[in-house]
Formats: sequence, C-alpha cells, structure tokens
Amino acid sequence: MANPVLVEVLRGSRVESVHRGAVCVVDADGATVLSLGDVAQPVFPRSAVKGLQALPLVETGAADRYRLGDEELAVACGSHGGEPAHVAVVERMLARAGLDSTALECGAHRPSHGPSAQALVRAGRAPSAVHNNCSGKHAGFLCVARHLGTEHRRYVDPNHPVQRAVRSTIEELTGVRLGANQCAVDGCSVPTWAVPLANLAQAFARFGTGRGISAAPVDAASRLRAACARHPFFVSGTGRFTTVAMERLGERAFVKGGAEGVFCCALPDQGLGIAFKCDDGAGRAAEALMAALMIRLMPLDPGERAMLDRFARPVMSNWNGIEVGRLRPSPVLLSK
Amino acid sequence: MANPVLVEVLRGSRVESVHRGAVCVVDADGATVLSLGDVAQPVFPRSAVKGLQALPLVETGAADRYRLGDEELAVACGSHGGEPAHVAVVERMLARAGLDSTALECGAHRPSHGPSAQALVRAGRAPSAVHNNCSGKHAGFLCVARHLGTEHRRYVDPNHPVQRAVRSTIEELTGVRLGANQCAVDGCSVPTWAVPLANLAQAFARFGTGRGISAAPVDAASRLRAACARHPFFVSGTGRFTTVAMERLGERAFVKGGAEGVFCCALPDQGLGIAFKCDDGAGRAAEALMAALMIRLMPLDPGERAMLDRFARPVMSNWNGIEVGRLRPSPVLLSK
Repeated sequence: MANPVLVEVLRGSRVESVHRGAVCVVDADGATVLSLGDVAQPVFPRSAVKGLQALPLVETGAADRYRLGDEELAVACGSHGGEPAHVAVVERMLARAGLDSTALECGAHRPSHGPSAQALVRAGRAPSAVHNNCSGKHAGFLCVARHLGTEHRRYVDPNHPVQRAVRSTIEELTGVRLGANQCAVDGCSVPTWAVPLANLAQAFARFGTGRGISAAPVDAASRLRAACARHPFFVSGTGRFTTVAMERLGERAFVKGGAEGVFCCALPDQGLGIAFKCDDGAGRAAEALMAALMIRLMPLDPGERAMLDRFARPVMSNWNGIEVGRLRPSPVLLSK
Repeated sequence: MANPVLVEVLRGSRVESVHRGAVCVVDADGATVLSLGDVAQPVFPRSAVKGLQALPLVETGAADRYRLGDEELAVACGSHGGEPAHVAVVERMLARAGLDSTALECGAHRPSHGPSAQALVRAGRAPSAVHNNCSGKHAGFLCVARHLGTEHRRYVDPNHPVQRAVRSTIEELTGVRLGANQCAVDGCSVPTWAVPLANLAQAFARFGTGRGISAAPVDAASRLRAACARHPFFVSGTGRFTTVAMERLGERAFVKGGAEGVFCCALPDQGLGIAFKCDDGAGRAAEALMAALMIRLMPLDPGERAMLDRFARPVMSNWNGIEVGRLRPSPVLLSK
C-alpha cells in the first residue's frame, strides 16, 4: 500500500505535485504517539543521524583531549553550508588533532551557501573537502581516530575502528543489530545503515531524554544537544531551517535532516523522538513536514509558531517575485 | 488510488526512494497505446509545451517577417542553459523585431549551465532576463506581438493577444477548452494551463504527425520540429538529455520536459504522442522515465539504445566518484 500524501504543492489554486512518506513519533519507552505509513520499512537515515554519529567523539574522550568547544561539537553534528566561519571551525578541529584538511576523505563540493560558493569562484579557488557539508562530521571522526591511536587513513571504511564505534552507538540507540546487508555508502563515503523509522524515532527520544540507554551516551548526547542549541549556525547555516528553528527554540528541539527526504528530531521536554522519510527524497517536502510536526507536537508562543509556519507553508515566488504557489501540510498531518 | 511507482532510486542494493506518476501514450486518432495511473487528472504542462506555445510564431508569419532561422525557432521551443551561444541567438531574435533584452518579462536567473553561471560571477556581472531558460520563448512572444502590431508590454498577461493566440493553439491541439480555473502563473510569468495527460499526449501525436488539426499548425509544427532536430543544442544545452537525445535521433523524436516532472514527446514515425507527470515533480525521475519510454516505444540501433539507457539508468556517484547507487525504471514500465 502506498504511504499517505504528507505535503501538497499548490500552483494557483490547484495541487500541482504531492509528496508521500512515512512518519513515526515515539516516546522514550517506545510507545507510539503518531504513526503514518509504513514505519517498519528500513530507511537510510543519511545525515539525519549526524548527532548519533558524533556521540563517540564525546564518549571516547576525544572531544576533551582536543579541547573541542561548542562550535566544534555543533559542526560535528551538522551539515554546514561551507561558509567561511564553518570552514574555520573545521580547520581548527583538524589542527587540534595534529591534522589538516588533506586528511578529510569526504570529497570536495562547492559550498551549498550560494554567496560563499560565488566568493570562491571570484577568488579563482576550487572547492576542497573542507567545503563539503559533512567536513565537520569527518573532522570529528578524525579526532576519534587520532585519540584511539589508530591509523586515521581510511577512517571511512565500515571496518575501521571509528565506524565500528559509530555502528555500535547506532545499534544501542536504535535497538537494531546492523549487518552488512543494511549498509550502503553515503554521499561523503562513510557507511549509512538502514534502520526502520520506528527505531530511528526511538533513538531520538533516547538522545533527547537519556532514558533507556547507558550513562556514557546520555552524557555525550546532553553535551551535543547543548552545543547545537548554543551554536545552531554550525549545524546548518545562514537562514536555513534547522539553524533558524534551533536559534529560536534552543534546547527544546534538536532537529537534523539528511539527503533523500529524511529528518530526525528530539523534543526533550515532550520526551519524544520524531523520524520520517519522504518517499521521493524531496528536501522541500521534508522541511515543510518537520516544521508542521513541530507545530503539532510542541507548545509554542505565537512568534515561534509563526517562524515554523513560514517553513511549513513556504510561498513559492517566480523570477519576477510573483507568488505562484505554496507548499502545505496535507490534512492527515493536521488532524489530532 | 495512488499512481504507480515509475522510477526507483537505489543506494547499494536497496531501494532508497521512489517516484510515482501517470503516463499516457496515444496515437493521432486518440487511441490509447499505454496508460498508467490517472491520465484524466489535469496537470500543468509548464515548459513541456513550449513547442505548442511557439506555433503562433510561425503561423502568424512573424517568423518569416523577422527572418528567424532554425536556431531562433529551436530556442523559442527550448529551455536553454544560458550558455553564451543561447544568449546570442535570443539577442539576435529581439534585435530583428526592433527590441532588446529589456523587453523580456520572464525575470532574471543565473544560467543553469554551471560553467556559464561561473563565468558571469568571475566577470562580476549579474544575470539578466536573457539568461532565463525561457528567454527564447519570450523573444518569440515578443516577435508575435510586434508582428501583430499590438503593444508588446505585458505580453505575459493571459488576456494579451499573444497569450490568447497561444491558448487557442493549445485548445486546438489538446481538444480541451481552457477556462480561468485551469490557469496559473508559470515560473517565467506567462500563463500555464492545466490539461489532462491524455489530451497532452494526443496534442503531441498531432504535433508530430499533423493528423487531426488544421493546415496552418501542421506546417508550423513541421517547421519547428525540423528546426529543433537540426539545432537541438538550442532546445536545452551542453550534455543535457533532450539535446543529446535529439542530436542522436533527429526528427524521429521531438522531446521536451518542464518543471515539476512533466515531459511531452512526439514520435512522428510511430505516430505517437507521450505525456507524463511525476507526482512529486522530480526532474531526475522525469528524464529517466522519458528515456525508458523511448526505449520501449521506438525502434533503435544499439548505439541509440545505449545512449538512452545512460539516461534511463543513470549511475549516482558521490563526491569521491564512488558509485553509490542508480536510478532504474520500475517493472511496470518494462512489461509490454
């Protein structure tokens, strides 16, 4: 059976396109609060689990050893826009571990932040691996490798001690044993592990509350959440949904998206974890959907609600600035 | 009922994302050759009907009066990449009608052809309306307005004589009466008219064969098809699917996509018209789907088939050039 329509795209008064998907919201005990579509189907969480992938950085002691502050921890959890301030923090992390950007194995791409990409072009410089949106996560992996005293080259390999530690952490938080048949290669060359949405949602309920997991990741998760709440700019970038939402909501929401329409969120005050995937992988739908879910699940003041509503129902304007349509959550998301 | 899955996106060995949609293939008599999903639902065809929108340019005599050659006619049917050669032809068209790029009302955006966009940044120049992918179509509209002796300003308005002529042409070819409730504003500010896929497919069967329509659009369609077959670079741009496909197949296929996952195609030798829309609006799925349909419906030599197969089953590589997945047509498309 097809998953339900979650987001509609209107042009004028007509629905022009639709985005289907599955959504799961659970509490830290695993009780289901909301379930739409097939939440048992394993999905690749991609960058939506960077928060989980960063836990070993704190748990192993690498973050303390290399004196990483909140900015470094936030960029390790983030998909940054390659803005100069992002690049500077990643380079600082690498220097603390005695490395430089040549150690990054994420591959190079242009900054996703347009003005930063154009500045590189004007300067006649090619983008490097440090501009890759995942370079903060990779710098974190390199810190862990150096701290563990292992060869850091090929830290992206599923059998490298760093990736084995990441896999164990994801297994503990999701409660899913991860085998080779759940593994694929992410855009930045590290493994991505397919996990059912229900388990991803529970992992984020645990990440947000500390319930149901051992002491080490509880402390690490708390530190990462605080770092991201203090420096949400380093989790994404100027004007982006996750940054704007966390700037406004602080530690009340830890929210992170990934490629192909996946999003995860911890709402510590509500004791909830959220995970969803848009079937078609559309990022535009994913942001609108997460904003709509936060409106539904969080107590909000009018200003907070208006901020989220701008992302839940974004206006689409054309090249002349004429409003031609908008996105909106489908009725199934609005009913309580 | 949900439309069927038409294209699957694999990461490793797992299906990571899927694209649903509806497909209609008909002959010039309106007999259905292939129908998948809801083909009675009106869809906005967007730029997929630029070929139909360009018919009045030839029918009215404007193309002859302003001595437009095949390059100009092709760019009037196209969504170009803003490459320097595209811009030059559009500027030439406008000059022939005694205008310049300030008359364009499509709005400005950066060239979609990356190197051309970067060259503008390096030169410190802002993109102008002539770089808009629709500037060729708009230059054609301006030629019609000048030829008709009407005020050319606000030629984008649904009630302007140019847009009324375009609407009549689309009504004749699709057999659908177009009222205000089927109208919305396209990305380039002209009207886009919602039409069922079955009628769009028939319009392209007629566009390709000349059957079932009056003499004037038959001749105009023939001239536009020949122009695009001779200069497919001006219909899209370097390395793009529609350009590459028409470079190889010549007048055997007139193929054009539009925003939000719509594609139309005329196969004159088979007497067929094709129209589809991906429900979610995904361009990546639309290209793969059109290539798969052309493989299914056209007699091809091995080289032609291999060319289309590269677009039907594109490999996805990550930033390190590692193959991480691919797109593939779903089984429903492959069965005869």
